[in-house]
Amino acid sequence: MSYQQLTAQSVLSYLQQQPEMTEFFTDFNQLEVREIGDGNLNFVYRIKDLSSNKSVILKQAVPYVRCIGESYPLSRHRMDFEIAALLNAKHHCPEHVPEIYHYSKDQSLVVMQDLGELAILRGEIIKGKVFPLFAEHISSYMANTLFRSSDLFLSSEDKKAQVKQFVNVSLCKLTEDFVFTNAYMDHETNEYNTALAQSAIDRVQKDPAVKIAVAQMRYKFMNNAQALLHGDLHIGSIMAGPEHTYVIDPEFAFYGPMGFDVGAVIGNLYMSYFSHAYESAISGEQSVAYRQWLLETIQAIWHSFASKFKTQWLAHEAQKQDGYWRFAGAEQALSQYIDGFINELFADTIGFAACKMMRRVLGLAKVADFADIPDLEQRAAIETNIIEHATQMIVNRHNYDSIEQLNLQATRILP
Amino acid sequence: MSYQQLTAQSVLSYLQQQPEMTEFFTDFNQLEVREIGDGNLNFVYRIKDLSSNKSVILKQAVPYVRCIGESYPLSRHRMDFEIAALLNAKHHCPEHVPEIYHYSKDQSLVVMQDLGELAILRGEIIKGKVFPLFAEHISSYMANTLFRSSDLFLSSEDKKAQVKQFVNVSLCKLTEDFVFTNAYMDHETNEYNTALAQSAIDRVQKDPAVKIAVAQMRYKFMNNAQALLHGDLHIGSIMAGPEHTYVIDPEFAFYGPMGFDVGAVIGNLYMSYFSHAYESAISGEQSVAYRQWLLETIQAIWHSFASKFKTQWLAHEAQKQDGYWRFAGAEQALSQYIDGFINELFADTIGFAACKMMRRVLGLAKVADFADIPDLEQRAAIETNIIEHATQMIVNRHNYDSIEQLNLQATRILP
Repeated sequence: MSYQQLTAQSVLSYLQQQPEMTEFFTDFNQLEVREIGDGNLNFVYRIKDLSSNKSVILKQAVPYVRCIGESYPLSRHRMDFEIAALLNAKHHCPEHVPEIYHYSKDQSLVVMQDLGELAILRGEIIKGKVFPLFAEHISSYMANTLFRSSDLFLSSEDKKAQVKQFVNVSLCKLTEDFVFTNAYMDHETNEYNTALAQSAIDRVQKDPAVKIAVAQMRYKFMNNAQALLHGDLHIGSIMAGPEHTYVIDPEFAFYGPMGFDVGAVIGNLYMSYFSHAYESAISGEQSVAYRQWLLETIQAIWHSFASKFKTQWLAHEAQKQDGYWRFAGAEQALSQYIDGFINELFADTIGFAACKMMRRVLGLAKVADFADIPDLEQRAAIETNIIEHATQMIVNRHNYDSIEQLNLQATRILP
Repeated sequence: MSYQQLTAQSVLSYLQQQPEMTEFFTDFNQLEVREIGDGNLNFVYRIKDLSSNKSVILKQAVPYVRCIGESYPLSRHRMDFEIAALLNAKHHCPEHVPEIYHYSKDQSLVVMQDLGELAILRGEIIKGKVFPLFAEHISSYMANTLFRSSDLFLSSEDKKAQVKQFVNVSLCKLTEDFVFTNAYMDHETNEYNTALAQSAIDRVQKDPAVKIAVAQMRYKFMNNAQALLHGDLHIGSIMAGPEHTYVIDPEFAFYGPMGFDVGAVIGNLYMSYFSHAYESAISGEQSVAYRQWLLETIQAIWHSFASKFKTQWLAHEAQKQDGYWRFAGAEQALSQYIDGFINELFADTIGFAACKMMRRVLGLAKVADFADIPDLEQRAAIETNIIEHATQMIVNRHNYDSIEQLNLQATRILP
């Protein structure tokens, strides 16, 4: 069937033709379809059985950027990447990826578990909500998806087939432009808070050390096909509740450097940290405690991730027993090799986190944590702190001994 | 036409059906076909017009490794990579790549310029012949093919399309196994000179620092899609005369780290250096002078390559004028960025060169420079020196300030 853009009206007749869906929904006369507005790029519908309360989410890509319109074309085949990445992540980390009930590459759509009882993590963090299991969950998600899509786990043949499948030209180009290029120069797509001092903008756009470091991270992004990344793992791509965490929206998936995903999470949490200094749903004592929770979460994410990554690696090598690591002292050597690998991944994480932060302040797409603050002076103070932290991070990314040192730097900027 | 393995008999009727070839050869009755034996993997024929003396080389891949036989299957589609890589290299560096007259992916064959007046460089170096233009030529070849296939030159879209086209599973697997794995452990495919001391073998196979470093280079080989490499650029893939240098046989072509090609050339020249200590066509005073020429060649290759690479990069940036490198001090910053890039490429070059050396001593495929020496004790002394140089190189690859320092190390091992 050739591609057809569904409407709230045609969704039901489409679903009725899919065997998986007629099995899921017993009575199609009881179904309600509602378009839900939170898709920037795509159309998203909730389909609910009013008698049983069972429901699903249908997400369809259109051949343009939905929130801008048909004037900004973007291949609907981005959904091919999203589908393949969802299936892959579901395979390696079922606890933190929604169920996939049905998908169609022809129609550029996927039907998946309704996570309606959960909320987008960014909104919850803005409200000051604490998620005690988040660090544990997201570190598992990253350790599993990154390790198990890499050469450290897959056969050389399987890995290369995956790299080829996930060459994601148009969405990588968006990242190359918006995360690694435009924000660091005078560019028409940039948007600056009018209260932000020129000196803060120049700190990002005219400091030789920052410019060199950003160019290095951009090059690394484009040339290090380490693992199948989510590719856009900010806290708006995560749905969280007290007991569950799910990662959604992997249309930017491609084979890239592992630190890009880890850095996305950590960079976004640092932005939340600085944003909670001023305007927020919580204030005073509570704000300090909440910021403390954010830093502890960053710390826990890194330590849990690194430890789970290493544990998987060691277990895999023990099971492989291929003779390369068989000599007097091999056990210690392997451990040292892994630690060196993780240290480099740590430097990458810091560098990518910094890019994610700087571009949100100066580039096109902001984050609500600070962009929704109506007092522009207050917002500018937050943005300046983010720039300060991020520029130090990227320039010194190889010199931090620990995540605690990075947190310490944040508390020096904002006690 | 479905694939057919040609024979000396059927070559002519095949060529007669190709318009490019009926244009090249005017009289098919005057043609002589001779199979020439130097193909390890493939069949190679010389087709010569006896009246005009015009000639071409036809190379056809068979679905197995020719020198072993049908018991060792290897997809004939390796010729697809060879053809595409030849065309690409010819485009970027016409002076050092043979003319391509005709090719067919269906038949896994290519018809190209007969370089009969030139000889394989390895054989000439074993004989002690000097090639004053070699460093100049090979550095141009590498600077052009590597820079112009990278993200530093191509658009993001074109580069990614190339990466996808050049996912070369089976030939990369050969390199991963034979250059980066088997030689460094107890493996059935290894072949040791019986006169080589166990301590020399252990230096490669049981030293934790060497094992970690080799694992790092292997990982880099598999994960850094920087540029379209030749992939097997040893001095047996180079044809040279006093005035010309041509690079042939790029069936291992894939997107990998630039240092792998540069390291292949340099590592092979170091093996020639150590091999000329003893048994050789030249001896005494002359041998010292020849070894000196080899070291000067290594030095010139690196300096010319680095300088040409940087010049091209600067010229390309000047022509792009994209605004990223436009701020007070940008020129100096860009230069510093490029120097940092080249420094990392230098460390990669040294690390890959070392792997190329170690595997030739302990692994399956030897090089004639030392493997053809009948006195096994003399040969073992050379192999021990190669291992000494290579193990120091790979462990200290980040610590050399210059190629001169590396040459100095070689002369300390063999004055």
